[in-house]
Formats: sequence, structure tokens, C-alpha cells
Amino acid sequence: MANNKRGQQSFVLPQLPVITAWASVAGKKESEGPLKDYFDITSQDTLFGQKTWELAEKQLQKLALDTLLNKAGISRHQIGLAFSGDLLNQCIGSSFSMRNTGIPHLGLYGACSTMAESLLLAAMTVSGGFSDNVVAMTSSHFASSERQYRFPLGYGGQRTPTAQWTVTGSGAALVCSAGVGPRIESCTVGAITDLGIKDANNMGAAMAPAAWSTIRTHFSDLHIGPEDFDLIVTGDLGQLGKDLLLELAQKEGVSLGGKLADCGTLIFDQTRQDVHAGGSGCGCSAVTLCGYLLDRLKSGELNKILFCGTGALLSPTSTQQGLPIPGVCHAVCIRGGRD
Amino acid sequence: MANNKRGQQSFVLPQLPVITAWASVAGKKESEGPLKDYFDITSQDTLFGQKTWELAEKQLQKLALDTLLNKAGISRHQIGLAFSGDLLNQCIGSSFSMRNTGIPHLGLYGACSTMAESLLLAAMTVSGGFSDNVVAMTSSHFASSERQYRFPLGYGGQRTPTAQWTVTGSGAALVCSAGVGPRIESCTVGAITDLGIKDANNMGAAMAPAAWSTIRTHFSDLHIGPEDFDLIVTGDLGQLGKDLLLELAQKEGVSLGGKLADCGTLIFDQTRQDVHAGGSGCGCSAVTLCGYLLDRLKSGELNKILFCGTGALLSPTSTQQGLPIPGVCHAVCIRGGRD
Repeated sequence: MANNKRGQQSFVLPQLPVITAWASVAGKKESEGPLKDYFDITSQDTLFGQKTWELAEKQLQKLALDTLLNKAGISRHQIGLAFSGDLLNQCIGSSFSMRNTGIPHLGLYGACSTMAESLLLAAMTVSGGFSDNVVAMTSSHFASSERQYRFPLGYGGQRTPTAQWTVTGSGAALVCSAGVGPRIESCTVGAITDLGIKDANNMGAAMAPAAWSTIRTHFSDLHIGPEDFDLIVTGDLGQLGKDLLLELAQKEGVSLGGKLADCGTLIFDQTRQDVHAGGSGCGCSAVTLCGYLLDRLKSGELNKILFCGTGALLSPTSTQQGLPIPGVCHAVCIRGGRD
Repeated sequence: MANNKRGQQSFVLPQLPVITAWASVAGKKESEGPLKDYFDITSQDTLFGQKTWELAEKQLQKLALDTLLNKAGISRHQIGLAFSGDLLNQCIGSSFSMRNTGIPHLGLYGACSTMAESLLLAAMTVSGGFSDNVVAMTSSHFASSERQYRFPLGYGGQRTPTAQWTVTGSGAALVCSAGVGPRIESCTVGAITDLGIKDANNMGAAMAPAAWSTIRTHFSDLHIGPEDFDLIVTGDLGQLGKDLLLELAQKEGVSLGGKLADCGTLIFDQTRQDVHAGGSGCGCSAVTLCGYLLDRLKSGELNKILFCGTGALLSPTSTQQGLPIPGVCHAVCIRGGRD
């Protein structure tokens, strides 16, 4: 077993946890995009039957959790632990969806890296023998994010070309000590980087250096390279951030070219859906993983992927105070269930 | 090894992680209170030399981390993982203190339960064999919290009698696979409770049911009771919440009386310092643990404590929308280093 005893950031899991079930819930715009056939639930009602955008986001997670448990055929009482978080102030999307479920819960804040963060903590919990069934979950909602981070929707603010579109969606995965499904082999916990980028409308640029740092560390810690993966998939760098990541890798002599995909560019059709640089938000990588990616790992279309959740750790307050945008990226290596 | 395979919320750690070092940094008001001799650093400058309250909170965590590493005699490169979080929107106190340190970091949001949450995750990481040296840390700042949750300080708002005073402080603990110091024996992850309490100026009442639920679960999962502890210490229930917890336990025939303490009532002198119901904030239990409590466990004054971090999972938005306040509590059993 490799671990990070020598200061390494990567863990190889001694007992491979299995992702036995996954579920995704998505909004109207996402249901019109290229991944529409992979979502379990879509809604044309952006409020998901709730009174506020924040309660709609709570509802997204509630639906994702219920769908996950249904698909797995287990009850809430069989869940030993749930990890979740979101972008809302004080993570109320997660707290309100988990209240009175009776499920032991640990809240996370990793901005848009939360799907990877929750997945790697779930894998550590299961592999360490602490629980047999652990949930990893997150969400984002376009309207609650716009109100909180940018402008009220009614203001009709003009978006810059580098801006990304926050995905309305929630993804949940069930990580177990036994069962059938894709397995988590290893993971790399990112360190927070800050290269001084201050444009809150260009978060791809703020996150790309963190993504490259974590991917490079994953390769060097485990003595592997891009050739060992069918796909290296980042969370929500968008088109600009993805191009920047390719460039950063190229400068160090590593070609990610044929292997790199980004959930922010996969989830929307940039020629047809007016999303500028692509999708973003915790929900972006969550619904792409808990649908498209895990489905393809299950079917054998993909054998091994490196899922790299990327997060821009800004707040409206830090931006207003002129502070730069720290970035983080956590990587999880997932192998298909067929070999 | 007991674990939560049967739906239990508690873990007994198979390899007992050791808290080899701890550090606390506190503000002016805290330095005038009963625990003043237990802090490593205190400052009469509420801004800690920074330009904003948010950067002051970042600085609190930076000072706590540096002091911790100095006391432990190890470098940043020897830290395998750090868990931290805070109350600020998007947890910028934690993200900005960790940027460019090179330390792998996982961000948490557990409101005022964060010290217990980070400690139990650090214990699981070490006990599971994933790392030898893990940091658990959190902070709060009176002025950044007031601005964010309540009113700008300059407004001079009148505080209600049930209100608590957010502690300015940061605590950090180093959890290791070997060494000398208090050891973490077991922990219980809380489930989020919501009994419909809506008064954001009475968070003790919102958290007390969660505290009792977790303490009761810890007792029943591990077949123990209050008699097994020298001290059961909650995070920041304050005087009202503490009284309510005693009452809830009493109703089920459990007397916590002589064993219960609350960091919110320990940290300030309620007769002399104008704090109403007591202290609160992530920093409240963090500086009380990473000073007063761990020092007394080290010296042998205390042998076994149950450290119960309590969190009120509200946001200003949820309060404005008339939503109730969910509560959570995580418990960590710590045994002194002398036996």
C-alpha cells in the first residue's frame, strides 16, 4: 500500500471501494444538452416545486439521495455516513436536504471540487473499514448561484465571454465495501494554489494551475502518466481553463491532448446553448460523473478514468476586497467494473 | 473493532491516533477571560495586523498553524493532510490561510462543530493508515461573523439576552500515528436534526437536541454512560443551551449534571464580561480544546473526555426566508496521555 507517509499527496486504497449506485438530477437547460439521456430525473420547473431557489437546490439533493437509495435498493438506515456540500453560503443546500434523515453527515466545502472531495472521503471511509455504505453528494443551482455570487436574475446583467454557466443539478454516488460496479483505486488530495488571478468571471484560469498541480502529482506519486487512462476529466474548467491546462502540461513536456475532457465542456452544446465558456458549479462534475461517466465505466466503454474535481475558492466578499482567487483540485482514479 | 456497519453512528478507532501537539490563538476579549493562561498567542489588535476582518480571520488560522508546527517541531512538508473550515461565506478564512502552503487540504463546513468534525476526520485518516500527520483546524472572528450574520458593528445593534458572543480565535491540533499525547479512542458522527426552532438569536436551543442525540447515541453504540467520562464538554451551547441539554437528558433518565461543561460558558466570565448567554463560533470550542482541555488531559488532571462539537446550520438567507435552524453535533472521545 502506497500512502502519503513520505509527504505524498496520493493514496492507493488498500481495499478497493465499489461505486455500486449513482444518481443524477438536472434542470431544464441541462436536459436540452448533450448528456440529457444520462440523467435520472430532469425537471422543466426550475424551482423544483419549491418556493425559493435555495429550497429548490435542497430539493435537488433530496431527489438525488432518494433516487440513489432506490436504485441501490437500500434504506437510509443502512447508510453509515454521508459527505456533502454545496456553493451556497453555509452550505444550506446540503444541510437542509439531510435534516431529519437520520443519516450521519459530515459537511464539506470544496467549492466545485466537492464531488471529488466527497468521493475520496467516502472511499477512505470505506477502505479504512469505518463503514460499508457511504454517500458522496453535491449540487448547484444556476439561480441560487447567480443571486449569491453575481447579480439578481431580474437585473439582466450582461455576461462576459469568459463567464461560465452554473449547472442546475445534483449528483450522488454510493460507495460500498462490497458489490458490483466501478472501483476507486487511488486519489490525490490537492493543495490550494493562488497565482494571483483576480477575475471572478474567469474561474477556469484560476483553477487550471491547481488542476495541473494535482494531475502532475498524481502521475509522479504513482509513477504513471496520461497513457494509463482512457480519460482524464476535469470538473468545470470550461473551454478557456481546459486550453490553459493543456498548455501548462505541454510546457512541462506532458501531452494531455487526446485524453483530456472537461465536464464544463461536455454538459452543454457550446454552439447551440448560450453558455459562453461552458458549465460550472458543484453540480457540473457531479451530474456528469453520476450519469455519463459512471454509466460508461459500467458498460466497459471506459476502463480507467482520472476524475479531477476543480474548485475556485473565492467568495463575493473576497472578490469585493480585491483578493485573488485560490484554486484547488482533487483527483480520484476510477476503474470500470468489468475487469 | 466496533464500526458503524450495522448502521451505528460511532466508530472505535482500531489504531489510536495521538494528538501530539496543539495550538491556540485568541483575541482581546478572550485574553481577558478565565482561559487566558492557556492560549499560545493573544493579540490586543482585533485586526491581527490585517486590513479587513476576513483577512484577520485568515491570519488567526495562519498563526495557529505556524505555532502548531513550531510546537510539534515539524515542517509543512511532513503534513500529509489538513482538514479545516470556518463560518465565513465560502470558508475563505480556511482557504486563504492554506493557499500556497503546499499542504494537501480538504475543506469542511460544519458550522461551530468544525473542530470536532476536523478532529474526527483526522483521526479516521490516521487510524485508516492514510497519513501519519494530519492537521485539524478551525477559526471564528467576532467582527467578521457579526458583519456576515447580523449587523455591521457600526450599527450598534442591541443584542438579545439569548444571544451569544462569537469567539475571536483559532485552534489547531496535530493528529499522528505515533508519539506522545492524548489519544482519540472513538467518535460519533451526528445526524442533522431540525425541531423547527427559528430564533437565530437563540442558537443554543437549536443545537441542544442535536447534542443530546449524539451524546445518547455515543453512549448506546459503545455501551457506556456519563460515569465513564471525567468531562462531557459541548462546543458552544451557551448557558441556555446547556440547561436545555441537561433537561433533555434528564427527561430520558440520564443525569449529565456533574459531568457536563460547555466551552461557551467556560471561555468568558459571564458575570464580568458582557456576553449574554456565552461564547460561540467555531473558534470557541477550538481554542478551549487546543489549550485548556488538551493541556489538562496531558497533565493528568483529566483522564477521559467526550468533546462534542455543536453546530447551528443556518445562513442569513435561510433565516430571512423564515426557515428553521438545523443543528448537528459530532462527538470525539479523547483519553489522557498518561495511562
